Order: sequence, then C-alpha cells, then structure tokens
Amino acid sequence: MKRRSFFKKGALATLGGMLISPFDLRANAVKEEFRGKKAKNIIYMVSDGMSSGTLTMADLYSRRILGKPSNWINLYQQNLATKAFMDMQSLNSVVTDSAAASSSWGGGYRVPNGRLNIGANGEVYTPILQKFKAGGKKVGCVTTVMITHATPAGFCVNSKARNAQPEIAEKYLDLRFDVMMGGGDDYFSPDHRKEKRDLYKEFLNSGFTVARDKVQMQKAPKNKPLLGVFDSQGLPYSLDYKYDEALHNRPTLAEMTSKAIELMKDHKEGFVLQVEGGKVDWAAHGNDIGALLFDQLAFDEAVGVAIEFAKQDKNTLVVVTTDHGNANPGLIYGKKCNDNFDNMQHFKHTNEWVLNNILPDSSTSFIKDIIAENFGNMKLTDDQAKALQAHYLNKSREDGLYNYKNLPFKLLAEIQKEHTSVGWISMDHSSDYVELAMFGPGSEKLKPFIHNYEMHNFLLEVAEMESKYFNKK
Amino acid sequence: MKRRSFFKKGALATLGGMLISPFDLRANAVKEEFRGKKAKNIIYMVSDGMSSGTLTMADLYSRRILGKPSNWINLYQQNLATKAFMDMQSLNSVVTDSAAASSSWGGGYRVPNGRLNIGANGEVYTPILQKFKAGGKKVGCVTTVMITHATPAGFCVNSKARNAQPEIAEKYLDLRFDVMMGGGDDYFSPDHRKEKRDLYKEFLNSGFTVARDKVQMQKAPKNKPLLGVFDSQGLPYSLDYKYDEALHNRPTLAEMTSKAIELMKDHKEGFVLQVEGGKVDWAAHGNDIGALLFDQLAFDEAVGVAIEFAKQDKNTLVVVTTDHGNANPGLIYGKKCNDNFDNMQHFKHTNEWVLNNILPDSSTSFIKDIIAENFGNMKLTDDQAKALQAHYLNKSREDGLYNYKNLPFKLLAEIQKEHTSVGWISMDHSSDYVELAMFGPGSEKLKPFIHNYEMHNFLLEVAEMESKYFNKK
Repeated sequence: MKRRSFFKKGALATLGGMLISPFDLRANAVKEEFRGKKAKNIIYMVSDGMSSGTLTMADLYSRRILGKPSNWINLYQQNLATKAFMDMQSLNSVVTDSAAASSSWGGGYRVPNGRLNIGANGEVYTPILQKFKAGGKKVGCVTTVMITHATPAGFCVNSKARNAQPEIAEKYLDLRFDVMMGGGDDYFSPDHRKEKRDLYKEFLNSGFTVARDKVQMQKAPKNKPLLGVFDSQGLPYSLDYKYDEALHNRPTLAEMTSKAIELMKDHKEGFVLQVEGGKVDWAAHGNDIGALLFDQLAFDEAVGVAIEFAKQDKNTLVVVTTDHGNANPGLIYGKKCNDNFDNMQHFKHTNEWVLNNILPDSSTSFIKDIIAENFGNMKLTDDQAKALQAHYLNKSREDGLYNYKNLPFKLLAEIQKEHTSVGWISMDHSSDYVELAMFGPGSEKLKPFIHNYEMHNFLLEVAEMESKYFNKK
Repeated sequence: MKRRSFFKKGALATLGGMLISPFDLRANAVKEEFRGKKAKNIIYMVSDGMSSGTLTMADLYSRRILGKPSNWINLYQQNLATKAFMDMQSLNSVVTDSAAASSSWGGGYRVPNGRLNIGANGEVYTPILQKFKAGGKKVGCVTTVMITHATPAGFCVNSKARNAQPEIAEKYLDLRFDVMMGGGDDYFSPDHRKEKRDLYKEFLNSGFTVARDKVQMQKAPKNKPLLGVFDSQGLPYSLDYKYDEALHNRPTLAEMTSKAIELMKDHKEGFVLQVEGGKVDWAAHGNDIGALLFDQLAFDEAVGVAIEFAKQDKNTLVVVTTDHGNANPGLIYGKKCNDNFDNMQHFKHTNEWVLNNILPDSSTSFIKDIIAENFGNMKLTDDQAKALQAHYLNKSREDGLYNYKNLPFKLLAEIQKEHTSVGWISMDHSSDYVELAMFGPGSEKLKPFIHNYEMHNFLLEVAEMESKYFNKK
C-alpha cells in the first residue's frame, strides 16, 4: 500500500527516453518560484528545546493517530522547504541556554549564557526586531510562555540578565512593537510587580490595545499595537488545555499566530514575527512526555497557520527551528513500543498536572487511580505507588531548573518509561545541532549547515534591508 | 574572530547593485556541476546506530580538539551535499533493527525486524547489489563488524534470520561479489564452523584473494575478487586500536574503504560499495562514550576517503547515513560540560576494555586506578568503586543485546555521566528520523524527507540502471 502511494505521487516519468526522478522536477518548480524574490515578511518559528526525537515523535503521532504528516515534516516530504543543521553553542558553552540562543539570532553575536544581546565585555548588540522596525516593518512576538521570557526577549531587547523580566516588560513599553502576546501577567500587573506599577495602564495610555483573554485578542483592531497577556506565567500545556474548558479563554499558539499575521499582513513595508512554542522546553525539563508531545503538535499547528499564509502571500519567508535540544527523548526499541506509543492518544493530563494533584495525604490507591485515569490506564505496582507517595510524605527534594515545586518528575518519568517506551538523557539542554527549515523567498539561499550567528545577517539580507543594518565586524 | 572568518569566506558580493548571498552562488555552482549526470559509481556509507547527538559530538570533537570540522558536517558547511531526514521504521515496528533497516534499502521493501529481504508472508526481494552486479557493475561491502552481519547482508542476500551468519557466509561464496571485508572469522573458519567446512579454502579455490590482515589486504590484486576477514567477530574499537600496537595488523575502516575503491574504480561499468561503521551501534548499546566517539570519528575518516575519491572522479554518488538512532546520547548543559567534553581527548580505552580488565579479585584501588588511567583521570568515590566491584563479586547480571558477558556497562555509564556530561536514554535503538547526506551526481534529486523504502529505486535510477531492475509494485 505504501509502495502504491509512492508510485502514484511520484510515477517515473520518461523524458527523452531517460528516467527522471519526480523529486527533481518538483524541487525545481518550487524553488524557481521564489528564486531572487525578496522576503518582504518573515515568520520565525521556534519550538524551544526541541530535540530531534521530539520532532520525530510528533510526526509519528500525527501520521499514526491523526492520519496525516505533521506540517513541518510535510514541508520536507513535499519538497517545499530547505533543511539544515544549525550549531547553537553560546560564547561560553557548547550547550546554550535560551537567552544566548535567541541573542545569537537576534543580535548576530554569541553571548554568554543567561544574557540578552550583551557580550562578554558588555558589548551591546542591536536586536533584530529593532532593526526591522527602524527599517519600516511591523514587528512582533507571540509565545506560550511569558512574553518577557528569553526567546522573544532575545529578538527585542538588551539585558545583562534574562531574569530581569519586570524590566524587560518596561522595555517593551518603550519599544512599542506591533504585537506582543503570551503569558507573564506577573511582570505587567500592579498586583504582582514589586513597585506596584501598572504597566497595562501605561500600555493603554500609550495607544495599545491590551487583551487579557482570547475574545479580547480576537477583537483587537489593526490600527493599534497589541499587548496580549493571558496567564500569570506560561500558558497551560496543550494536553491540560484540551481537557479543561476553564482554560479555553486563553488563545492557542496557532490562534495567536493567526491574529498576529492578520494585524500585520497588510502593512506596506511588510512584517517580521517571532512565534515560540516555549513549553516544549519546559516539558523536556520535566521529562513530561504528554506535555512534550502535545505542545510540539500545538506548535506544529502554528506552523500550519504560517505556511498557509505564506503559500497565499508568496512574499513571506517562514523559518522553523529550535534553539537547542533538551533531554534528547526517543522512542525505544522493544516489542511493546508501537502499542505504548499509540496509547499516548489516551493521555488526559500532563505529568505536571498529575503531580500537582497528588497531595501529602493522598493514598496509594488514589495515586494509582489518578495515574491510570490520566495516562491511558497505566498500572502502577504497589512499590511504585509507594515510591511516589514517599516523595510527598518526606518532602524529599527533586531538583531541576523548571521544577520549582520540587515534584517527583524524574521518578515518574522513570516509572513511565516501561509504559511509554520513551527515555530521556537528563532534565536539561543538549549540544545537538538543531533542525532548521525554511520555506519561501530566501529559503533557496540556505546552506545545509550554519552557525547560529550567521542567521542575523541572513534574515536582513533576504529581506533586502539597507546595508547599514548589517553586522559588519 | 568567528565573525571575521565568516565574512572572509562569505563576503557580501554586490551584483547589479543588489546584495547577494554567497550561499546562493556556491550552491548553484556545485549542484550545476552534477545536474543530469549519471552516478556511474555509488558509495553507500552507514554509521550504524548513529543518533543525531553522536554526529554532533564527533563534529564538536573534531573542531575543538583536531582543529577542523568533521568531513560529514563540512560537506554541509561547504554546501557540497544535500541533506534529508529518512524514516527508517520496519514493517512491524516504528523502531527498526539493522536487518530490516538495511533490507528496506537493499530490497526496497519494509520487512519485519530480524529478517533480511524476506517479507511478512515470505516474499523474496532481490537485494540491490545482486541487481547492480547483474547490470555489469563491480559490487562490494566493507565493515568494522562481521561481514556477515545485518547491514552488509541486507544489501547482498535473502535470509529469514539475520543470525544465520554461517549460511550468509556460504551465500557470499555463491554470489562472488568483488570486495567483501570486515570481521567474522567465526563464520568462515573450519575451526569455528560447526560442520568444520573451510570457507576460506573454498573462496580461494573459487578464484578469490583471501586476506587475513592489513598487509595481505594491501597486496590484493585488481584482477581477482577479494575476501578480507580480520577478526573473529567485530574489529576492535578505534580507541582501543589507537593504544594497542598488537591490533595494528588489522586495517581501519578508512583503509578498507580506500582499498575497495582502488580495486573497483577502473571497472568500465562502475561500482557500488557499501561501507559500514558497525561498532558505533555496539558502542551505543554499551553506553560506551569513548567507543562511540572515536568509532564515529573513524567512520568520518572513511567518509573523507570516499569524498576525496568522488571529488576527483566526478561520476560517483556518495550517500552518508545511518540505519537508526541508538541511545540518543547528548552532551548535557552544565558548568563543566566544555571541560568534561574536551577531557575525552585523554581517554585511552573504551568502557568495554576497562570492564573486561576488571576481575572478580580486583581491589577497589585497582578499579580506581584503571578508571583514572583510561578515562582522563576520572576519580571514583569509594562507593562507586565498591559498586563496580560488587558487580563482579556477586556476578549480578546486567542485560543488553550486545552485553554477552553481562558486564556493568550501565552502571559505569551512570557513574561517568558526571565526568563526561553525556547522557543516554537507554541501551537500545530509537525511532528518530535519521540523517541522510548525498554528494555527487544524483544528490540534487534528494528530497529533504524520504521513507527508507524509497532509497532502492532512487539508487537504481540515478545510476541509470535498466528499468527491469526497478521495484514496480
């Protein structure tokens, strides 16, 4: 059956008596359409912390359970995108953090981990959205984590510390970018900011639309810049969102992407938008397979929105990538691996949600039930239930950058491994060269290997920005 | 400094007043040279069980310690190769074994794990080297594992069981391919074959040169087919080889590749050669970082030999890929990760060698010394030394497909993690889509995503074989 569909799509054509591959003809057709054209618009999409196995598993899930390839891999399969490795190391480490990673693109220079476009000796590198804005384009960022978080911030601001999120929120007010949406109420609201400053009011007074839920976002008019803040910190994981209607007042990443494009697409000088699937990284830090898989799929939906627009528009370069690997998850060989993998369609909540719903006084039978209920009838042994319970009783700590509540993420992932066939190398970033795809005008210029710091000039160049904006050193 | 070298190599050229990317110009130049040309020769190179992190770490090591990029990544960086993902799943599992993987290319159909070009219902698919041989080409395989092992066998024979290595050796006698080299004396020698048949004598009587060491291999003449068998099972790991002169009578993979090319390159109808770095997979099964890193680098040397020939020859397609991920190793974020990684240059032996040199009566101080001596002064705590010792005293079992001696590979890898910053998801294969590179005529036809079973016709097509050889179903 698979053979048949291959030959149906790609029947061997005979041209002048010689066998010609269908691949070649299509490659030419697509790439010639864009060759030499300017990228008036750029949509730069980042699935934060996406290892190669994360991309693979999302595509396998899409094919096996949803009956279609993922949008990202389908770009390759249809020969519509170019494909490369990108070396993401930072100035001081072969393994980058998200701040140095986004800065390498945003400012065009490698910086030490933790910094935003500030070099080792205090050098200040102008972020790329400031350049595009100065060049006349509309610019913006949307993300599933705080809009003040490292990945959007690396395209927007200079800061010696990525953690300075209250100050980054203030910088956004000064920058007056056209669309900024995500989570991070804690950094805008007078209820949460230390000095009680009400940034929402200041954005409003400065001429912004401020949206705090999906309906408000959808109503936002084109003639004003938009600030959208939909959660205190990050937005919910897509898996938890799916089964909890109370969360549906938040927009999805695809919905934010669609709105951002709508607000900027008619601008005469074009636009540049960064889109981040930020919680893929958090899920990997938690070795939380349900969170990871469904947030990668949600990111892929946003890719679909961007590609759909770009196909119509024909003047838009879509870049799809990640800033680093994280935990290198992979589906492991074994007799049950197909069944275990397919069983994830029955997952109802993330590990994070389940662990937050186990309390110090939860019985082992409660623990067994909540695990079975939410992870496709996964059965714990008595010993496993007791080991999880012990963690809450003893308040033993389990560390991890994103494990602020010290919940037993690692233990749960180890127990899950037998039921999911998914393993993890750690709870942190990896040095793996990352996946990079491009669709649209400029994509034909991509080499199959680039360093992260080459991206900055590449984007300015394919958008035909004035040479004064290029990094020259 | 990095910025400077980027601009030196890729200075922004002005053409008709418009800024043009150097990437684009080079891409065109290289690909146009091959466009429409026939791949008279094909060199198909497989680093068995190479996860994305394995390729990355070998390139990082090459750049940081050896002062140059790896040959594989350099092909991308110089824009000389096309790059794709390949989906390697087998007929019965999303995670393949090496037999089904090689069969998918060799026979052009997915088969159940464990089989060589035999379908679920007994279908017999003709292996690709039999087709190329029938079409007039010289054909052969070289590998660092047994020449009767799954990856070469999948290009050569049909067998319901990959484990039937004594029978596969007999099939090779009948096939009379031009170059077959690797390990596997156990399947050719009358001393090891159950029925005492002397296959070496039969190969000699049949007109072959039989080489049992590097010198004999180097002397082999062009006018006879060559069987080279250099070890009982697999050849030594490259790291162990480096520090043990007694092993230097064996050829390296690069040397076997070079000899195989020399023997076949002047054949009027061209040649097809498979080259396998087979012990990269074994190293991953053992979570053995020194074994993995240096065998991947040895594979990369063989890539260099193939590319060097293909650049001169201009009629040779070089395919560089892997059959599946394995253990998804990755270098993990942390303050010491650069130093830990660089310290691997001081490794003197593999984990396998060290574990084989610890005995039931070894003291903890001996264990500490042998670990420090061979792993760049890695210091064990008393508890760690005792845990290793306990394994030998208790003869506790540690399972694993390639752990026939039940040595504590997993425990050692866990202890090493703090000193190497390298983690592993398991001791087995993963489902990750695999890396695929092509250089030379035909490479421009490669789409950025293909299924494994599409490779078979692709190779026949770019070699312009008669259509009767194509799989038509």
